[in-house]
Amino acid sequence: MSTVDPTLASCPAPQPENERILLGHGSGGRLSAELIGRVLVPALGAVGPAGPLEDAALVEVDAAALALSTDAYVVDPLFFPGGDIGAIAVHGTVNDLAMRAAMPVALTVAYIVEEGLPLDVLRRVAASVGDAAAAAGVPVVSGDTKVVGRGAADQIFVTTAGLGRRLPGAAPSAARARPGDAILLSGLIGCHGVTVLSCREGLGFEADVVSDTRPLHRLVAAMMAAGGEGVHALRDPTRGGLASSLNEIATASGTGAEIEESALPVPEPVRAACELLGLDPVHVANEGCLVAFVAADRADAVLAAMRARPEGAGAVRIGTATAAGPVVVRTAVGSRRVLDMLLGEQLPRIC
Amino acid sequence: MSTVDPTLASCPAPQPENERILLGHGSGGRLSAELIGRVLVPALGAVGPAGPLEDAALVEVDAAALALSTDAYVVDPLFFPGGDIGAIAVHGTVNDLAMRAAMPVALTVAYIVEEGLPLDVLRRVAASVGDAAAAAGVPVVSGDTKVVGRGAADQIFVTTAGLGRRLPGAAPSAARARPGDAILLSGLIGCHGVTVLSCREGLGFEADVVSDTRPLHRLVAAMMAAGGEGVHALRDPTRGGLASSLNEIATASGTGAEIEESALPVPEPVRAACELLGLDPVHVANEGCLVAFVAADRADAVLAAMRARPEGAGAVRIGTATAAGPVVVRTAVGSRRVLDMLLGEQLPRIC
Repeated sequence: MSTVDPTLASCPAPQPENERILLGHGSGGRLSAELIGRVLVPALGAVGPAGPLEDAALVEVDAAALALSTDAYVVDPLFFPGGDIGAIAVHGTVNDLAMRAAMPVALTVAYIVEEGLPLDVLRRVAASVGDAAAAAGVPVVSGDTKVVGRGAADQIFVTTAGLGRRLPGAAPSAARARPGDAILLSGLIGCHGVTVLSCREGLGFEADVVSDTRPLHRLVAAMMAAGGEGVHALRDPTRGGLASSLNEIATASGTGAEIEESALPVPEPVRAACELLGLDPVHVANEGCLVAFVAADRADAVLAAMRARPEGAGAVRIGTATAAGPVVVRTAVGSRRVLDMLLGEQLPRIC
Repeated sequence: MSTVDPTLASCPAPQPENERILLGHGSGGRLSAELIGRVLVPALGAVGPAGPLEDAALVEVDAAALALSTDAYVVDPLFFPGGDIGAIAVHGTVNDLAMRAAMPVALTVAYIVEEGLPLDVLRRVAASVGDAAAAAGVPVVSGDTKVVGRGAADQIFVTTAGLGRRLPGAAPSAARARPGDAILLSGLIGCHGVTVLSCREGLGFEADVVSDTRPLHRLVAAMMAAGGEGVHALRDPTRGGLASSLNEIATASGTGAEIEESALPVPEPVRAACELLGLDPVHVANEGCLVAFVAADRADAVLAAMRARPEGAGAVRIGTATAAGPVVVRTAVGSRRVLDMLLGEQLPRIC
């Protein structure tokens, strides 16, 4: 009377030849995870990444402990309150390295530009890349520029890659989260996604909220100094928002999590915009905050170190890792709901 | 009676705000060089690359001598005889590292995908990335995938970045070419560009010629073993062809070059296609050959080492570096013509 229980890992869904890429495949949610897990990583075979997917890969060369990461940026519009495509391209890759406790050593930048783009737009984007890299203290050492005909790309896409040098000790990893870990959040959520969406759609919220895009490597250095190997896991909740990051960590480590809804720092304009649009702030993209799973006995020290830095001034404890099971949110009235990843795309081209 | 002599370096041309990006800005020719020199590198300010631009940047971390490079690929069509966008994305970055005598340690890959792309196309491209990386012996350690709406990109763009470990000794550099250096070419020119163009335009030459896309790092390792620091400069003549590479080396090193036209290995279908289309094979893109400036006393040993490898079996000496002046070609009848870079775009989206 037993029945086969097909799971994602053991039984991929059939993929007919006429299946097509959806916007949701780039969402950072479940469709993204399925595309990566079923198509992109298997295609790499033996030369693909080993183990759970992380924001950056660890690489050893001679005695140097390095990290390497890449991200493509297609945000629409190119310029928005608090940042632009050049700034998030630098910050995103710096932050991916930082999530493995690696300090940025060098960046590369590749532009794909649509024929007819005003040269001044490219100049502004390139200047923003330069300014953001200078502010993060990392050189841009190599680049490439391709131009495609009108209509073959939408203005400009920017892809960065980053090389990082790891701080001593075990690198934080989604797989290292443990039951009982304190779950810390470095600041407000939802600002980046609401800003870009509001800007794009002319909703008017962009007067009250700006993108949080910023580099987080110095915050991570301070956290590592305070918490050492007690800093088990770090993620910056970009596409897919906090909900995706929490679920990715839970999946990779075999833990669950209980989050206090009342502890989530959601600014009022983000709350208002999300109510209007039927969004949940936990699914909205961020570009300048991080979530950390920290051993309980180091949590207070790490939280204090975070609050001592401007980019962590609003840091709070939002919950606790549990032994197993889903990520759940406890509401103010005591009820509990499962916090799942989104299936598909909520906000296309948010980064 | 003296007049001001405005040069590229000292007197940038005026750039009115309505100036726009042209296809030629992505050509690898003079417009590309101007865009890089006047807009993109200055935008990076102090965090930009120092010194002449090379295929890959040298980076030191702890005691490790590394190289880092990136390239974006927008080739149209995606699949062509001898290769596809996934293969050239791997080979191109591996080869950029190899031109600094760095062996590939790790790659990253970022896909920008148009909504509606058949999943099978993505699967084939990703499999090609995996196959090419496996054949080159380098893992793909990190990746990213973004999806943009229909019409916001043309099918799929692939950006790779590569981390390399440098072979001992001074890295080859365009700036290290010296008068008297033998100029060696590893094999046939023009095959990649003619194949892609013929495929795209249905010219019929694609039955007789295939892209030369292939990794060159093992060839470079053999050359370095034979020539050591006598291997002064290496370039793979991709966009802009052999003419661009020779001019870039001449400019960076303050040398000139004299090339024997009769020594240039141009396969018959490439010659026929170029005659039909009014192209010169020295301006056509390659993805699997390199040009080397080698100290005269090491040239025979390096040439022998090249010929001992399959990817260098057709290696030839094509000329000699001169003390100064332009790159010139000596024709079979003894006349001489200057071999300049193209101004703009001959073959858009060739890689």
